[in-house]
Amino acid sequence: MSSGPALVSILRQDSYLIASVHTALDDSEMIRLRNNLVEQIGRYRSNGVIIDVAALDVLDSFGAKTLATIAEMARLRGALTVIVGIQPDVAFAMVQLGMGTAGVPTALDLEEGLAYLNARVPRRPVRGPLGD
Amino acid sequence: MSSGPALVSILRQDSYLIASVHTALDDSEMIRLRNNLVEQIGRYRSNGVIIDVAALDVLDSFGAKTLATIAEMARLRGALTVIVGIQPDVAFAMVQLGMGTAGVPTALDLEEGLAYLNARVPRRPVRGPLGD
Repeated sequence: MSSGPALVSILRQDSYLIASVHTALDDSEMIRLRNNLVEQIGRYRSNGVIIDVAALDVLDSFGAKTLATIAEMARLRGALTVIVGIQPDVAFAMVQLGMGTAGVPTALDLEEGLAYLNARVPRRPVRGPLGD
Repeated sequence: MSSGPALVSILRQDSYLIASVHTALDDSEMIRLRNNLVEQIGRYRSNGVIIDVAALDVLDSFGAKTLATIAEMARLRGALTVIVGIQPDVAFAMVQLGMGTAGVPTALDLEEGLAYLNARVPRRPVRGPLGD
């Protein structure tokens, strides 16, 4: 399982974490994404998380539920989560099946997601090398 | 079906989409409206949608449900939806038949709908005075 291309890449930009999902994830991979993100929020003291699902053309109910769980766990750890890039077909399926992301903020794409966080997350002074 | 007057016109005003329904729509026309709106949200990066149903004197349960679906899909794509112009008879029928738009914001008319969006949708930093 550790071989092959990365299914999710988690980048750090200032105080944000940006998780890009590159392909459909099965349940165990969703859980690993959840654990990785929540762990990195603590390690990097992130206060904003963007989950980019633009590459997904399908999202099952477990995946949608896990995204909502991640957002709530992140909130409890002090970070605001926004989900970006939900494709029209995925949006339709989520609504029809009643598995909305229930209150998780969403945005059209990465740019809008960053704007959303920038408008809501308090700025943190950039730390120099002494701070690390 | 493609001949004749347009049943719905979708106009773009800044970052909003304004869909005016001119006549009663059957199910397939409602679905086409849904797909067009959701597609245009992505194409034009809209963050607000107004659906004007002032010309409708009847709205069946499928229509009401589809309006709610549009609103939720738009939210998942990062846009806020408000339905305007629900006529008294339509409002009465919707309440009596229990087919409310379940949480979708509504406003009296187009002007109120625009005011609703203006108060809630973050301004684009493209134009207007800059300020942090």
